[in-house]
Amino acid sequence: MRRINVIGIGAGDPDQLTLQAVKALRATDVFFLLDKGEAKADLVGLRRDILAAHVPEGTYRLVEARDPERDRTAGGAAYSPAVGDWRSARAGIYERLIAEELGEDETGAFLVWGDPALYDSTLGILEEVLARGTVTFEYTVVPGISSVSALAARHRTGLNRVGGPVQITTGRRLAEGFPRDADDVVVMLDAHQAFRRYADRDADDAGDIDIYWGAYLGTPDEILVSGPLAEVAPRIERLRAQARARKGWIMDTYLLRRRREDGDGA
Amino acid sequence: MRRINVIGIGAGDPDQLTLQAVKALRATDVFFLLDKGEAKADLVGLRRDILAAHVPEGTYRLVEARDPERDRTAGGAAYSPAVGDWRSARAGIYERLIAEELGEDETGAFLVWGDPALYDSTLGILEEVLARGTVTFEYTVVPGISSVSALAARHRTGLNRVGGPVQITTGRRLAEGFPRDADDVVVMLDAHQAFRRYADRDADDAGDIDIYWGAYLGTPDEILVSGPLAEVAPRIERLRAQARARKGWIMDTYLLRRRREDGDGA
Ligand SMILES: C[S@@+](CC[C@H](N)C(=O)[O-])C[C@H]1O[C@@H](n2cnc3c(N)ncnc32)[C@H](O)[C@@H]1O
Ligand SMILES: C[S@@+](CC[C@H](N)C(=O)[O-])C[C@H]1O[C@@H](n2cnc3c(N)ncnc32)[C@H](O)[C@@H]1O
Repeated sequence: MRRINVIGIGAGDPDQLTLQAVKALRATDVFFLLDKGEAKADLVGLRRDILAAHVPEGTYRLVEARDPERDRTAGGAAYSPAVGDWRSARAGIYERLIAEELGEDETGAFLVWGDPALYDSTLGILEEVLARGTVTFEYTVVPGISSVSALAARHRTGLNRVGGPVQITTGRRLAEGFPRDADDVVVMLDAHQAFRRYADRDADDAGDIDIYWGAYLGTPDEILVSGPLAEVAPRIERLRAQARARKGWIMDTYLLRRRREDGDGA
Repeated sequence: MRRINVIGIGAGDPDQLTLQAVKALRATDVFFLLDKGEAKADLVGLRRDILAAHVPEGTYRLVEARDPERDRTAGGAAYSPAVGDWRSARAGIYERLIAEELGEDETGAFLVWGDPALYDSTLGILEEVLARGTVTFEYTVVPGISSVSALAARHRTGLNRVGGPVQITTGRRLAEGFPRDADDVVVMLDAHQAFRRYADRDADDAGDIDIYWGAYLGTPDEILVSGPLAEVAPRIERLRAQARARKGWIMDTYLLRRRREDGDGA
């Protein structure tokens, strides 16, 4: 039986690997590295570094493939499949990789950024490959430190307040409105700085909000900013634009914390 | 300057420690172990095992204290302070521990279950100790694998669906109603099996819900159940009651996933 490990590798700091992840790396025969093209090559670089640091050379094979890039800018590019098509395209690639590159008794692995449970498609794609029924395999998931946990740790704050909920969502959703039923909101995948809508407290009824923002968390380029949103939003916008121009890409995440009437115990 | 590490140790599996956590353990002079009394002694046991496995004996001191137990059952016990009192009581203990047991140039550590960012009071208490101003110290937070990440990994599912949000909340809140604006809801700290309210789909308008439930995640006692809530709720109740009777305590977490009209891509 073929085996596959889906291994969460943390969100940037190679020391965020768990001992379980290191064991899984060492038990792997074939690593599938999916290159998303463009500047994200840096991210493939981190995966290579992790392998070099933890797995003896010569004990594994590396198989690289080009992940079909999903175009998120509407109408801008020649190649812009619907989400469904894009998933099928990826499932086709994964299926082929597993069938052709992994021996019947071997263990393969996908190294997933952060925690495989958060905004990552690997598990969904593997389920789709299994559903197609042309290759069979067992798979296990090794949880990883998410960028959300990394953000909270670097700001030394909890995600929730006493007994309160926290919602994890996307920039796109935040742009539609502040979630009801949650005063603590973590935002990922935000290409458009959706927090700006809430920076002007008179323009929106979200009330007073504090932000805990982090970019390139866990890496040498890490940037942290926190404070009242209305005050620090312009600084975040500036830092973000500068960093993005300098590196060619940016990954950032933030927690918005709406102040409560009844005090702010964490 | 005194230093303190707040170290997330994962939610039950000692292999969920990160490399960063192991380094922080080895850089610690004094470990503060807070015993919450009663059956939770098992949990202190895991902390001891982690130290024994990763830190050479004789390189550290262990200081144990009794954490004031917050009584969550209304009116049942003699000692039932309000949340504020309880926090101050804990802050007083932490303050004394740091002042009396940690030398001026030493590093102390608190080992926090799961991720220190989720439903844990250690960071809030340390801030309160600093605010009191009688002892000074620097502190850093090492993120850990939360029980939420562990749950998702063991069920091999994402926490969110494509582009959708996920809310993390408590049993008490869930009992008040299903969160609006989130179809994926993780529930912690649920002593009363609040999911039962949603198991009878005719009795509530929450619609069709799947549950991914886990108890004692990462430990040899781990129990996993998943399926349509209406079908598996009675089995979860039974297993939970049995396990709780057998061990004297239980820790469980679950993801409720409300089925979408428009398909269920993960
Ligand atoms: C496709 S999602 C993957 C999330 C990942 N599975 C995790 O657990 O962090 C990518 C988003 O995660 C966040 N992210 C990932 N790594 C980050 C980092 N090192 N610093 C800041 N944000 C990060 C950003 O919001 C980014 O848009
Ligand atoms: C006070 S909170 C602490 C959470 C912890 N900081 C974390 O990141 O998982 C305790 C709650 O976490 C959940 N929990 C912690 N460890 C667990 C485990 N091993 N299995 C299942 N649930 C767990 C349960 O919902 C429990 O009521």
